Amino acid sequence: MLMYNIIDKKKKGGELTREETEYFVNGYVKGDIPDYQISALLMAIYYKGMSDTELLNLTDIMAESGDMADLSGIDGIKADKHSTGGVGDKTTIAVAPVVAACGVKVAKMSGRGLGFTGGTIDKLESIPGFKTSIPKKEFFNIVNSIGLSVIGQSGEIAPADKKLYALRDVTATVDSIPLIAASIMSKKLAAGSDKIVLDVTTGTGAFMKSIDDAVTLAKKMVAIGEGAGRETVAYITNMNVPLGIAAGNNIEVIEAIETLKGNGPEDFTEICRNFSASMLNLAGKGSMEECILMADKAIENHSALDKLAEMVKMQGGDERYIYDTSLFKKAPYSYEWISESDMYITQMDTEQCGKTSVLLGAGREIKDSVIDFTAGIKFYKKTGDYVKKGDIIAVLYSSDKEKLNKAAGYLKQAYKTGRSKVEKQKTIIAYVSKNNVIMY
Amino acid sequence: MLMYNIIDKKKKGGELTREETEYFVNGYVKGDIPDYQISALLMAIYYKGMSDTELLNLTDIMAESGDMADLSGIDGIKADKHSTGGVGDKTTIAVAPVVAACGVKVAKMSGRGLGFTGGTIDKLESIPGFKTSIPKKEFFNIVNSIGLSVIGQSGEIAPADKKLYALRDVTATVDSIPLIAASIMSKKLAAGSDKIVLDVTTGTGAFMKSIDDAVTLAKKMVAIGEGAGRETVAYITNMNVPLGIAAGNNIEVIEAIETLKGNGPEDFTEICRNFSASMLNLAGKGSMEECILMADKAIENHSALDKLAEMVKMQGGDERYIYDTSLFKKAPYSYEWISESDMYITQMDTEQCGKTSVLLGAGREIKDSVIDFTAGIKFYKKTGDYVKKGDIIAVLYSSDKEKLNKAAGYLKQAYKTGRSKVEKQKTIIAYVSKNNVIMY
Repeated sequence: MLMYNIIDKKKKGGELTREETEYFVNGYVKGDIPDYQISALLMAIYYKGMSDTELLNLTDIMAESGDMADLSGIDGIKADKHSTGGVGDKTTIAVAPVVAACGVKVAKMSGRGLGFTGGTIDKLESIPGFKTSIPKKEFFNIVNSIGLSVIGQSGEIAPADKKLYALRDVTATVDSIPLIAASIMSKKLAAGSDKIVLDVTTGTGAFMKSIDDAVTLAKKMVAIGEGAGRETVAYITNMNVPLGIAAGNNIEVIEAIETLKGNGPEDFTEICRNFSASMLNLAGKGSMEECILMADKAIENHSALDKLAEMVKMQGGDERYIYDTSLFKKAPYSYEWISESDMYITQMDTEQCGKTSVLLGAGREIKDSVIDFTAGIKFYKKTGDYVKKGDIIAVLYSSDKEKLNKAAGYLKQAYKTGRSKVEKQKTIIAYVSKNNVIMY
Repeated sequence: MLMYNIIDKKKKGGELTREETEYFVNGYVKGDIPDYQISALLMAIYYKGMSDTELLNLTDIMAESGDMADLSGIDGIKADKHSTGGVGDKTTIAVAPVVAACGVKVAKMSGRGLGFTGGTIDKLESIPGFKTSIPKKEFFNIVNSIGLSVIGQSGEIAPADKKLYALRDVTATVDSIPLIAASIMSKKLAAGSDKIVLDVTTGTGAFMKSIDDAVTLAKKMVAIGEGAGRETVAYITNMNVPLGIAAGNNIEVIEAIETLKGNGPEDFTEICRNFSASMLNLAGKGSMEECILMADKAIENHSALDKLAEMVKMQGGDERYIYDTSLFKKAPYSYEWISESDMYITQMDTEQCGKTSVLLGAGREIKDSVIDFTAGIKFYKKTGDYVKKGDIIAVLYSSDKEKLNKAAGYLKQAYKTGRSKVEKQKTIIAYVSKNNVIMY
C-alpha cells in the first residue's frame, strides 16, 4: 500500500477502504508516514468529505489507537453526554446527578477548558478538595456504589486524534465536518459508555456557526455512534448567547446547584431536563415524556442534589458547599455594567464573551495559566431582552482589578443593542436521532 | 503574516497577494515553512486553482528563487521552445538549427530524459565528442558567433520549483494545471529567452490526457509568459502516437538530421516547420506564411543542416556525423516485429512505447543508469496505418539481447489492432496565443 495512492484516491473523491484508513492512521501515529502526506490527505478530505462507512472506520481506528476504557467493571448501562463546546456550559454538573439519581450510571471522563470555552473538570475543581484525578479502580467503585463519577481524562485516549488534531490546527483543516465528527466520536467511543447524548452548539459562541452545519455534524456523529453499536442522539442548541447566566468556574457550579434546587435559569433548565431525559430514555427507562417527569422529580425531591453531594464527598470534596453555596469563595473585585438607556439587546458575540471570561482569569491564556475559580461573568441580560436605564446588563468578576476594566470594555463590544424588538431565540433548535431530525 | 491564514484563504477560494505568495515560496525555500503546511496549500490550490495574477506572481517568484540567466551578453532576440514531454520528441535538434539559420538566436538550455520521455541533452550526447556542459562565457560566445547553442541546465534554476515539485510528487498534487504551468514557466523565465514557443503534448504518451486540459494548460502558460513580458505561443500536439518514426537517442538524432535534409517523417516535419516558423514570427521575421517559407528554404538549401554541423563542431563534437549518419554506432541487436495478418493499427499506448524504449536502454530506469545511445524503437506503423501480413510494424534496438525479447513483448501490448479503418489523427491539434485558440 502506498500513501501516495491513498491521497490520490481521496483527492479524486474515492472511498477509502478500512485497510487504507488503518494504513494512514496507524502509520501516522507510528511516525512511518510524514506530516506532509497526512496534511495533503486532510485537505483532500476537507473538500471531498467522507462516506458514513469511511467515517465510521476512521473514528473506530482513531479510538483504537489508544486506551479503550473498558467499563464492563461497572454494572448496568452507562450513559454519557458530550458538548461541542460553548460559553456557560455547566450541563454535565447538573445532568449527571439527575441521571444517576434516576438509576442510570454515569461514568464520565471530562475535559479542561480549551480556548474560550470552559471545561467541566476545571469547574468541578472549584469545589474545595474535589479530586478529578483518581485511579480507575476507585472510579469504578464510586460509580458502582453511587452510580456517578466525573473525572479527568487519564491514560492515552485516542492518540491518533491528538496527533491529527495538532496537524489540522496548523494546516487550516480543523473546519472539516467529518474530521470534527471523527475527532469527537473517537474519544467518546474510547470512553466506553453505551449510550451517548451529544450537544452540538451553534452560533456566535460555537464552532459551528450555521444550523445547517450543526445538523450535518450531528447526523454524522449519530451515524458513527450507532454504527459503533452505541445508541446516540444529538441536540442542536443555541450558542448565540451564553448558556444560563454564569460563565466562569465556581459561579457556574453554583448555577448548576441552583438548577438542581429548581432555581436555575430557564434556558439552562430546559437543556438539563431534555438531556437528562434523553440519557434515561436511551438507557431504557421509559418514553421521553416519562423520562422528563422522572428528571423533574429528581430535582423536586432533591435526590439529584443529594447525588451531586454524594459524588463530591466520594471524590474528596467538601459537600457542604453543595447545600450552602455561600461558602464558595467570591471574587474580590467586580464590575457592574449598568445600562445608560432604554434599549433591546439585539445581538451577542458569544465567543467574545467567552474570551472576556478567559481574560478575567476563568480560563487559560497559555497552557500553564492558573485558573482563578472566582472569575467570570454573569449575563443578566441577553439577546432579546429589554433593558431599562439603570438595569444591570452584566457583572464581571476577577481577582485582578486591572483586568476587570479591560474586560468590561471587551464585553461591551460583544453586545449589540437597538431600539427594535428582537425575538428571543430557541434554546434547543433541533433533535437528531438515527431515524430523523426534528426541528424545534 | 501567518502561513495558516494563507492556507485558509486559498482553501476558501481567495486570491493570494504577491506578498503572501512571496511569503510562502521564499519561506519554503529557506526552510522556515514546514512541508506539511505547503502540502496542505498545494492541495487547496489543486481544488481552488489560481487566478492569472496569482499564477504570474507564483511563477515569477519561483523563477527568481534561483539564478536568472542573463542573456543580455548575447546580441539580438533570443527564441526558445519547450515541450511538456513526449516519446520521439527530437524537435529541438531540428528546429533550433532552422531558426538560427534564419537569423534568430537560440541560446537553449535543455534537460535530460525523465521517466518514459527522452531528453535533448542525452540525445545530443550520442554525437561523439559533443559537450553539453560548457561555461557560460563560451556558451555566449558560441551563440554570438553562430547564433545557436544547446547546453544542459547549469546553476540553480528555480530551486523553489525543484523543492515544490519534489513535495507535489509525494502528495498527489502534481496534476494541478496551474502548478504545472508555474513549474514549467518558472524555468522558462529563468532561462532568459525573449520569445517562447511551447509544445503542449496530449494523449496516451503525454501528461495531459485530454485536449481540454492541454488547452487550459497552454492558455495558462501563454498568459504567464506574456504577463512576464515574454511573447509566448503554444501548440497542442498529438501524443497518442510517438512523434516521427524513431524513439531513442542516436536514432532520433539521425531522424532530426534526415528532417533537415528534407527526408523527415511527415508528422515530425510538420511540427518542425510550424515551431520554427512561430519562433521566427515571434522574433519579428515576418508573417507566419513568410516564416514557413523561410524555414522551408533553410532546409532546402541545407543552411539549417550546416548550422547544426557548426554547432556540433563548436561544442567539441564530430560534425562528420551530421553529413554521414552511417557513422553513428548501431545497436548490436535488433528485433523486427512483423505482422502476421492484414489489419489496422487502431490504438497505441504511447507511454508504454516510451517505457519499452527505456527498458531497451534508451532511458534511465534509475537515476544513475548509463544510457545506451544505440537503443530504441522505430515505429514504422502507427495508429491509422493499414498493415499487411509480412509488413514490419516496428523494429527494436538494444545492446542487451535479453532485454530485446522482453521489450518486444511489452511493445506488442502497447498496440491495439482491428479490422476497421481508424482515421489518422492530426499532429497539430491547436494553436494558442494570447488572443485566441485556433483548433486545427
